[in-house]
Amino acid sequence: MSGHKAGAEIERLIQILSRLPGLGPRSARRATLHLIKKKEQLLRPLARAAEDAAERVDTCSECGNLDVNNPCAICTNPKRTKDVICVVEDVADLWALERANAIKGRYLVLGGTLSALDGIGPEQLNISKLVERAADPEVKEVLLALNATIDGQTTAHYLTDALELCDVEVTMLAHGVPVGGELDYLDEGTLSAAVKARKPF
Amino acid sequence: MSGHKAGAEIERLIQILSRLPGLGPRSARRATLHLIKKKEQLLRPLARAAEDAAERVDTCSECGNLDVNNPCAICTNPKRTKDVICVVEDVADLWALERANAIKGRYLVLGGTLSALDGIGPEQLNISKLVERAADPEVKEVLLALNATIDGQTTAHYLTDALELCDVEVTMLAHGVPVGGELDYLDEGTLSAAVKARKPF
Repeated sequence: MSGHKAGAEIERLIQILSRLPGLGPRSARRATLHLIKKKEQLLRPLARAAEDAAERVDTCSECGNLDVNNPCAICTNPKRTKDVICVVEDVADLWALERANAIKGRYLVLGGTLSALDGIGPEQLNISKLVERAADPEVKEVLLALNATIDGQTTAHYLTDALELCDVEVTMLAHGVPVGGELDYLDEGTLSAAVKARKPF
Repeated sequence: MSGHKAGAEIERLIQILSRLPGLGPRSARRATLHLIKKKEQLLRPLARAAEDAAERVDTCSECGNLDVNNPCAICTNPKRTKDVICVVEDVADLWALERANAIKGRYLVLGGTLSALDGIGPEQLNISKLVERAADPEVKEVLLALNATIDGQTTAHYLTDALELCDVEVTMLAHGVPVGGELDYLDEGTLSAAVKARKPF
């Protein structure tokens, strides 16, 4: 396959690594070589960490986050308000919002967006769980933190309809100029959204 | 460290992956998420492959290649001529030459190049083994397949001196236009080397 002829053990490691996002065959070979050269510092720890994660990490049945506990540490954290459910497309988005320390509430990971092209309909997403949780009278707001793509926005509209019977306010992330961003590099859509949403200084 | 707060098991996997060449914290997070989502197809196989490689792969005491056998499959292959020893800087270079099927002989991995800047002297490299093997009367040629960098060329000169007492011809890779390369994109050094080494058509 990657044709380097270095023994089945090395070959297998290269093949698995080359299937990771961001790694091609060439970088998978470099990574493998690096791992084997640092056997004690990297290769064995990687084997153990992968084994541990495979054994212990699971999907939270409440929100779809990945954690060693089910329900996850966020869902069971009493300091987190039940007022807000933040809906994200993917666990990566949840992690990004957690790094930003931006959400005081809890999450729901949809597991994708509606996409006619990819044949993803409402039943493939975690929507019934969202509606079930949003029906809880403690929940006051559902924040749709979906990507600002066509599919993301289609999904946002669909969710707004699905949540109509729940007594919650449905909100979305603000559009605007990224903090630290230079206007020159921004697309027209972002710029005109930022102008439309302008605020007193 | 990478501040994503997703449990120690996940965090450890991200940290190890982010130390691989070509992966930063962001791509290590993406890779980890991908691995956990594909637990059976990727994460468990990765754990096994890393464990296997850590247990079984070793450095060949003859040539410095990585293999499950010592001496390695190349050194013990009777179809490979003993006439030629191809000297490379790193195992990655050996793999590249093997993919090209370019070497009929055997190898010696130096483990680096001489570098005053990085404080790498002759004793840090696999040079005594090279001289020992080159002294074998069966060996007729030592091909220096070193990088065309200053350090690579310094090392080539040093090795030529070190091999003076052995009865071998010391050769080096040809410089020229890469096959499929466009002249327009090549540096001046390569172009003038290719012109100097021009051949009848």
